[in-house]
Amino acid sequence: MTELADGLVAVDAGGTRTRAVVVEASGRCVGYAVAGSGNPVAVGPEPAAAAVAESVAGALARAQVASSGIRLVVVAMAGGGSVSVTTQVRERLMAIGVDAPLVSESDLLATYCSGTHRADGYAVVAGTGAGAIRVENGRQVAVADGLGWLLGDEGSGFWIGHRVVRAALADLDGRGRSTALTPLVLARLGVAAPSGPGDREPILAVVRALYAGPPVRLADFAALVSEAHGDETSERILDGAAAALVTSLGAVGSPAVPGPVVLGGGILGRGPQVAERVAVACGAEEVHVVADGTVGAAVLALRHSGALVDEAVFDEVTTSLAALR
Amino acid sequence: MTELADGLVAVDAGGTRTRAVVVEASGRCVGYAVAGSGNPVAVGPEPAAAAVAESVAGALARAQVASSGIRLVVVAMAGGGSVSVTTQVRERLMAIGVDAPLVSESDLLATYCSGTHRADGYAVVAGTGAGAIRVENGRQVAVADGLGWLLGDEGSGFWIGHRVVRAALADLDGRGRSTALTPLVLARLGVAAPSGPGDREPILAVVRALYAGPPVRLADFAALVSEAHGDETSERILDGAAAALVTSLGAVGSPAVPGPVVLGGGILGRGPQVAERVAVACGAEEVHVVADGTVGAAVLALRHSGALVDEAVFDEVTTSLAALR
Repeated sequence: MTELADGLVAVDAGGTRTRAVVVEASGRCVGYAVAGSGNPVAVGPEPAAAAVAESVAGALARAQVASSGIRLVVVAMAGGGSVSVTTQVRERLMAIGVDAPLVSESDLLATYCSGTHRADGYAVVAGTGAGAIRVENGRQVAVADGLGWLLGDEGSGFWIGHRVVRAALADLDGRGRSTALTPLVLARLGVAAPSGPGDREPILAVVRALYAGPPVRLADFAALVSEAHGDETSERILDGAAAALVTSLGAVGSPAVPGPVVLGGGILGRGPQVAERVAVACGAEEVHVVADGTVGAAVLALRHSGALVDEAVFDEVTTSLAALR
Repeated sequence: MTELADGLVAVDAGGTRTRAVVVEASGRCVGYAVAGSGNPVAVGPEPAAAAVAESVAGALARAQVASSGIRLVVVAMAGGGSVSVTTQVRERLMAIGVDAPLVSESDLLATYCSGTHRADGYAVVAGTGAGAIRVENGRQVAVADGLGWLLGDEGSGFWIGHRVVRAALADLDGRGRSTALTPLVLARLGVAAPSGPGDREPILAVVRALYAGPPVRLADFAALVSEAHGDETSERILDGAAAALVTSLGAVGSPAVPGPVVLGGGILGRGPQVAERVAVACGAEEVHVVADGTVGAAVLALRHSGALVDEAVFDEVTTSLAALR
């Protein structure tokens, strides 16, 4: 085991994956590991804290760094992490021998810092949830949306998946137009197509299946818009998602901050359909698309340790992390 | 206590109130009583069954009719009543001495039969939920929507209330236009207005309050559109609700059945705002607006007992019930 004088651990605790990285003061990433969902709202505080500790233990093992060599841990989590979640994360880290100061950060800010080293700009995140922030002097100074599946998250995976399922049901029900999404939704749920006009059993089967699970499960259906090529309903849903995200971005806009704009989260970071629409509509000169917030969590850890993250250090973080993935 | 040779009990088990009526073979209503929610989805099967029995006991007492004098009970309930709910209702009725055949009916059909004695036509219901049906020969032969708050119920109280709250949050958040709904939503929840630009505490307080309760509670906010006179956002929400209901009606439309159209449920039956829009847009010559499904439950009970419900009997039911309310 190597002892790091300046060992830092950065964690991006996301809705589907938790990613931890061990980073040196130079910006060089030396260990990386992935665990399950680290979103306390999605899976509960205890499983989220366990996922954080699991990813950290994995990253330390990969880096061959002793847990005692770590002097700071930064965890980027939805909502910046509540006190109760932070307490549980601290206990779990102590249990694997990491007894260093713990700093909680906003997952939106980590997304921003994954795309640029610049101190001022914007991030738009659309994963299971969605929101936009303005960043000044490296800090999040304004936020729009991020209000959850029931009250906001416009343009998110839930928002898209919800519309996909409703469009399919409206098609089956005779209330909506025919869409290529309908057979995809039925197939995903293992429900047989209607045997003829007026056969209501497929509708009732979809309703039974979806009310049996938590509402956020509807986000799983967002991916179907990518499979329904050229479908008018799918295109309209994607246009609506992009418009909602651009509206959130506009709500945090300031003439003093022209950009850059960083796009992240599962909907924007792992497929071009919505990201390209947002990039065009927002009119920013500099747009970066990032797959997750791991680089940004590492950047935030470096800054909290007192390091200056300029373009060279940012490139070092990005390049060395990419080599570990 | 009078012994009725042909005592019938009809129950309209609604989302907020359960109404029971004792009706004679002539169509004369002789007892009426109200209890709490009889919707098994909203309050659970046991409280729903208890509300049915409570309303029946009250109506029998008011009619001064012995429970042994009843030869048929008809209960109109969301979804027509599942087997498990019907079993619980039967047990509760036995416990108050009502040992008569129990027939479950659709609450949508009871709404239809509250507005007309005609054998063919349509009903559009918008209360907490929403749906439309086509009726032929006195039976429900087609249905659209009624798929619940998460997957359908377009134009319902939930649909409207959901949009009211989201519009207020978008206003507070800078994502949406200013609306008179915002102070109404804040007042309803006892949340203080923002102290200045960028004060996010009111948004977070609304989010905390609403995620703490069940999603269907958002239907409570539908009433605020009536208080925001002339507000553009409110008008747009009401237009959208009416358009969605007209779409559901269109989905069950048949050229062979020109009407009448019966409008019911809390949103359509107890305020003109949406009902007038739907009445105009649907283009039907004969439109009836009903406050609830009690008359229709009585009509269904009479028909199940073998009686012919013509215009004269229908008028007898309507007039005698109105005198009891």
